[in-house]
Amino acid sequence: MFRGLAGLSTFEQTAIWIVLALAVAGLVYAAWLRGQILAYETGTDRMREVWGWIRDGANAYLSRQFRTIAIAIAVLSVLLFLSVYLIPPTPEAEEVWGDNAVMAIGVGRTIAFLMGSLFSYAVGYVGMTVAVAANVRVAAAARRSYSKALEVAYRSGTVTGMLTVGLGLLGGTLIFLFYGISAPDALLGFGFGGSLIALFMRVGGGIYTKAADVGADLVGKVEANLPEDDPRNAAVIADLVGDNVGDCAGMAADVFESFEVTIVAAMILGIVLGTAEVAGGGTFNPYYLIFPLLARGVGVIASIIGTYVVRTTDTERNAMGAMNRGFYLSAAVAVVGTLLIAFIYSNPGLNNGQGGIDFRPFLAITAGVLLAIALDRLTEYFTSTHFSPVRETSKASQTGSATNILSGLALGYESSVYAALVIGVSIFASVLIFRGGDLIAVLYGVSLTGIGMLSLTGNTISMDAFGPISDNANGIGEMANLEKSARDVMDDLDATGNTTKAVTKGVAIGSAVIAAVALFGSFFADVLRAQHQVLNIPLNVTDDPRLLSGINVALPSVFIGLLVGGALPFLFSALTIRAVSRAASLIVNEVRRQLRIPGLMEGRVQPDYAKAVAISTTAAQRELVTLGVIAVLSPIVVGFLLGVEALGGFLAGTIVCGQLLAVFMSNAGGAWDNAKKYIEEGNYGGKHTEAHKAAVVGDTVGDPLKDTSGPALNPLLKVINLVALIVAPIVVTVQGEARTPGAITIVVMLALIGVIALAIMRSKRNSDELAESPTIAPVSKQA
Amino acid sequence: MFRGLAGLSTFEQTAIWIVLALAVAGLVYAAWLRGQILAYETGTDRMREVWGWIRDGANAYLSRQFRTIAIAIAVLSVLLFLSVYLIPPTPEAEEVWGDNAVMAIGVGRTIAFLMGSLFSYAVGYVGMTVAVAANVRVAAAARRSYSKALEVAYRSGTVTGMLTVGLGLLGGTLIFLFYGISAPDALLGFGFGGSLIALFMRVGGGIYTKAADVGADLVGKVEANLPEDDPRNAAVIADLVGDNVGDCAGMAADVFESFEVTIVAAMILGIVLGTAEVAGGGTFNPYYLIFPLLARGVGVIASIIGTYVVRTTDTERNAMGAMNRGFYLSAAVAVVGTLLIAFIYSNPGLNNGQGGIDFRPFLAITAGVLLAIALDRLTEYFTSTHFSPVRETSKASQTGSATNILSGLALGYESSVYAALVIGVSIFASVLIFRGGDLIAVLYGVSLTGIGMLSLTGNTISMDAFGPISDNANGIGEMANLEKSARDVMDDLDATGNTTKAVTKGVAIGSAVIAAVALFGSFFADVLRAQHQVLNIPLNVTDDPRLLSGINVALPSVFIGLLVGGALPFLFSALTIRAVSRAASLIVNEVRRQLRIPGLMEGRVQPDYAKAVAISTTAAQRELVTLGVIAVLSPIVVGFLLGVEALGGFLAGTIVCGQLLAVFMSNAGGAWDNAKKYIEEGNYGGKHTEAHKAAVVGDTVGDPLKDTSGPALNPLLKVINLVALIVAPIVVTVQGEARTPGAITIVVMLALIGVIALAIMRSKRNSDELAESPTIAPVSKQA
Repeated sequence: MFRGLAGLSTFEQTAIWIVLALAVAGLVYAAWLRGQILAYETGTDRMREVWGWIRDGANAYLSRQFRTIAIAIAVLSVLLFLSVYLIPPTPEAEEVWGDNAVMAIGVGRTIAFLMGSLFSYAVGYVGMTVAVAANVRVAAAARRSYSKALEVAYRSGTVTGMLTVGLGLLGGTLIFLFYGISAPDALLGFGFGGSLIALFMRVGGGIYTKAADVGADLVGKVEANLPEDDPRNAAVIADLVGDNVGDCAGMAADVFESFEVTIVAAMILGIVLGTAEVAGGGTFNPYYLIFPLLARGVGVIASIIGTYVVRTTDTERNAMGAMNRGFYLSAAVAVVGTLLIAFIYSNPGLNNGQGGIDFRPFLAITAGVLLAIALDRLTEYFTSTHFSPVRETSKASQTGSATNILSGLALGYESSVYAALVIGVSIFASVLIFRGGDLIAVLYGVSLTGIGMLSLTGNTISMDAFGPISDNANGIGEMANLEKSARDVMDDLDATGNTTKAVTKGVAIGSAVIAAVALFGSFFADVLRAQHQVLNIPLNVTDDPRLLSGINVALPSVFIGLLVGGALPFLFSALTIRAVSRAASLIVNEVRRQLRIPGLMEGRVQPDYAKAVAISTTAAQRELVTLGVIAVLSPIVVGFLLGVEALGGFLAGTIVCGQLLAVFMSNAGGAWDNAKKYIEEGNYGGKHTEAHKAAVVGDTVGDPLKDTSGPALNPLLKVINLVALIVAPIVVTVQGEARTPGAITIVVMLALIGVIALAIMRSKRNSDELAESPTIAPVSKQA
Repeated sequence: MFRGLAGLSTFEQTAIWIVLALAVAGLVYAAWLRGQILAYETGTDRMREVWGWIRDGANAYLSRQFRTIAIAIAVLSVLLFLSVYLIPPTPEAEEVWGDNAVMAIGVGRTIAFLMGSLFSYAVGYVGMTVAVAANVRVAAAARRSYSKALEVAYRSGTVTGMLTVGLGLLGGTLIFLFYGISAPDALLGFGFGGSLIALFMRVGGGIYTKAADVGADLVGKVEANLPEDDPRNAAVIADLVGDNVGDCAGMAADVFESFEVTIVAAMILGIVLGTAEVAGGGTFNPYYLIFPLLARGVGVIASIIGTYVVRTTDTERNAMGAMNRGFYLSAAVAVVGTLLIAFIYSNPGLNNGQGGIDFRPFLAITAGVLLAIALDRLTEYFTSTHFSPVRETSKASQTGSATNILSGLALGYESSVYAALVIGVSIFASVLIFRGGDLIAVLYGVSLTGIGMLSLTGNTISMDAFGPISDNANGIGEMANLEKSARDVMDDLDATGNTTKAVTKGVAIGSAVIAAVALFGSFFADVLRAQHQVLNIPLNVTDDPRLLSGINVALPSVFIGLLVGGALPFLFSALTIRAVSRAASLIVNEVRRQLRIPGLMEGRVQPDYAKAVAISTTAAQRELVTLGVIAVLSPIVVGFLLGVEALGGFLAGTIVCGQLLAVFMSNAGGAWDNAKKYIEEGNYGGKHTEAHKAAVVGDTVGDPLKDTSGPALNPLLKVINLVALIVAPIVVTVQGEARTPGAITIVVMLALIGVIALAIMRSKRNSDELAESPTIAPVSKQA
């Protein structure tokens, strides 16, 4: 039954079971923390009333989201199951399953896909419900103690973090246990399920949160002069729900996906490496497969220790310091733990099958830990009020909105260059560490770098979820009129949460890029394997001219793939910005309508919060469909039109432009946000100055960039790579020996341009219709 | 002496002389037009006075620019001459020059480099002086007749256009005449000279023009409430000069460079193709080399005819229609002429050396003509007030600056996707046209597509220069208080000029991308040739494992190259935006200082215009140095650190991201500009509304994007490709057989990040110092 254990040494078999136990331990720890949080008091009746609205809104979103997702999952499950009938089974699958190979792989891939989807949704769902359960408790705790409030807020984030770590490791280990060296097909399904849900959660959440936020602000603050979080604003609950939807559910699903995809890539490449390197008497060296699982196990321990120590005192009140301490402790535990494993578990394939200590995986993982720290510090440098870039943007606000915007654009562009260089250096570290090994070995190193980065997942997600939880607590405090001492505590936590939320975005993007590069590496191996099978070339023949010799961008069709791939993140960004604008205008209309209800402005009538929640929810789901279809279909279209090598170029283009654009948008947005805050702290005249007004414009521009468009690119990178991996063998089968695509292609490409043009024009017309409606265009009406 | 004629048939020899004659004819036509323009009257004394200041400012800029350039050219000439000693001469060079090969190639490359630099500078210089000579004459003509004013404005642009066409063709033809099949080395020098000067003219001009524009507006319009072009504003002349510097000199040098680089790429690839394909009794088929020269000759005729017919009547007053008519006529003449050549000049290499009609080059050139038209229409769609994108941005201005900015960002992103797809289709056209041929043949097709695009150079430059000329005429009209009827004519021409100026940017970017792709193709051929020589592999051996088998982005170091290359345009954009801000703040200080001079505001004292001109000029030149160094050094650093294949990845990354960013910035900027104009036409409340104020913010943000950062990327793409081509053989020599780079690399990369960080921090400190100075920060002082 446990086909993965066949051929493993007792030590290795024990190791697998220990990893499984650690995965479960992570989940148990998460459950324990959750119980601890739920045991806290929930404050006054008014607090519970406000909290009830948020909870209902969050549940409404999650159940609606689930319906959209369920349809997509159902359709794709069938397609995935059928996909294995289009390609011959791999030699490994035949070795493990014999005549039942096709059916076994089809079932495995489908179940793994469902598992990946379910786990990803569960991480988002639980993360969000715990966050929603926690916010009122943080508000209640803030009335008594700073340190207690920090503890509740941080630990409820840790629940999600441990869930991510536990489920990600559990899924990968289970698939290996049941499928052994035939695992890659199922692993791809697992990764694809997680990525697809992450795309939905990220994009849907991003559109939801910014539509509610921008909509609430445009009418509430600008037109009706209501303060932030005023209970008369019908969109205020949608706005609070949005923070959870975007930064808890969306971010958790996104990081879970990277966590999952790096282990998937490491296992697939580890199997390829292990198959090529016969160790001892066996036919397969399992070292490269088991090491990453063990390293992930260490990550579970590191996460538990590093998150548990996060606490401060009521006199010290240093939330940021406590979180950073935990972060570095996790990093240290992860590095030391991995080094111990390298000493204990020697690689049986070294020294001509005699075995030996292998420091290479340890070094690659350490490079990943360092990369996570470097990206954290880099993001902090560019988006925190303590450093010159943000201050410069604040200063530029003095000469108006235009100079504020230009300063933020330059800052964002610049930060993306540094991030690219840092990521480049970390990939190059693998080249050096696996020097002398082949391409697969180096790419394996890149996937280990990703595993290293995500050793700190527990801390990263805790720090990220801390943001919306303390933001919501603050909102509940405002709406429930809590005493000043409690508000002060929450204000401090809220401000810290803004920074941690911004900083973790850097790691989220970086891990997405590294995960995508690792998948991109698997793509090359995948295509070669498929070509060997389809073209009936023996595996030991590597110089057949029909085989893919590389992804050669000097070939025109590959270059076109690169160009089109590079354009994809730009298209995605354009569409997500527009989607937010459209959804926000619907919210604006609704809030205006409700403000005209007699008695509402006087506070006698309560607004219909559920209506605004429903509008945001529905709008986000509708916009999602187009974006999801583009993400899934574009690699398929490029693959069939331009061929498998051009598909490789397409992936590379999307990764490179996606990384640069995502960092640009995320950091520019974060900097604009904090440039405004820096002015609000009293610099350059403080609030109610022209400089502040200019900075508000920058903040509003940055909002959809940093919370919708930028984050949407992370799952995009992984989804297109996974779709490409799944489709590549089919493309190879169809393409056969032909390396250049047919003349039909240009016609289809022109038709595609036409179709996209039509689609965009249609969406434009929709937005035109919205904008034509008489209730829009407030400023000119009031002017 | 004319080694290029050796082995050619009489027909071919005659063809070369005819091409040379056509090149000269283009120059003679330019000179004739110039004489015609200079013969027009120059209006009133006051007009001549204002004009004198502009002329002096323009001359001051050009002579200062020349000094900066002269130093760079001198240093690089020596380095280029020495570079040929680092690599063994090519077999072709030895065939043509025997033992003198090294010296002959060194001299040829250096002289060609000087010629390219000189021609490029001459195009910019003459283009600008003619434009400056024309503006006052347009103003004078506008007092009598609309059609006459259009004729003067358009034809003075044609002078530059014909100069571009004539000099580009002359240079390429002369080099072939003297160097024959050993021409590639010299051609690279020719291309590099032109590209480098174009980079200087584009970047310097872009910084100059926007510093003056933004500086003049910030103090003049915002602080002192002076109207546009008010003579009391000390920066008004610098602003008018800036239009010429940016849109005449910069654009002309940029297009000249594309014109030159496409012929260079076509000739290099044509020689490779011709050498591989032995025709008749000879050893070399010159068809692929001579066809593009003949097509360029046709382009000269097409440009003369198509520009000559541009005229309208005083009752019709349709400047745009007349220019479009000329554009399409040129296109038709170019296509028909090229088809005729295809019929007359049969390819001796076809049908096993018996010869035959070859439609492939004709088709590739036609694809280029269609591409130019498609990009024109695409740019017009996204940036003209007649279509929905710009109107939507206008509409978004009603809800404030933030929504205006977001709408423009989405529009810019979207337009870059379309441009990428259109360019992708046109490259794919070459794949189809040269189906069955090898990679070099397809890339040769891409370079012919570039030649086709630039058949319309005469019209493109005329339409572009028309913008600043009519803008300047309008400024002279304002400052000289001309009568309303004349102002109406100039207002109309000025508005049309804004559109034509925006539209031609699409072709400029497109031609830069196609030229860069063609060069990128030559890069691959160049590296292979160098490897054959350095590694002593016979030319007929193509499967030696030490040879470059492709630019394989699946290799980690190549992927890193791609990532770093992609980051380069982002870095360039960040630096150019900052450079404009810095230079503008210097102008702001100066204008403020002068406004405080007693009597100046009352008009009794004349401002010191030359001072503002000098400040803009000096600032632009200083900023230029960093950018020039980055452009020239980055491919060298990547090549030596990561190897020649990673250098290929670097080039591909820069081309892809450069194209997307350039189109994004250029179209977003154009759209913001026209969204403001659309409101000024009376829509959404017209001037003096909140919507208009919001649109002004967008326009100010867009200005440096569309006129500095975006255009700067065009020459960047070509410069890095040419530097890579020149450096590649040296990298191959140094690298030898090693395909993966040394461990030292990671250290150097980290050091590089440090150095860049320091450089940027230093430049930041400079800007901090500027911003700290008490005379800045006007808004908060006034608030």
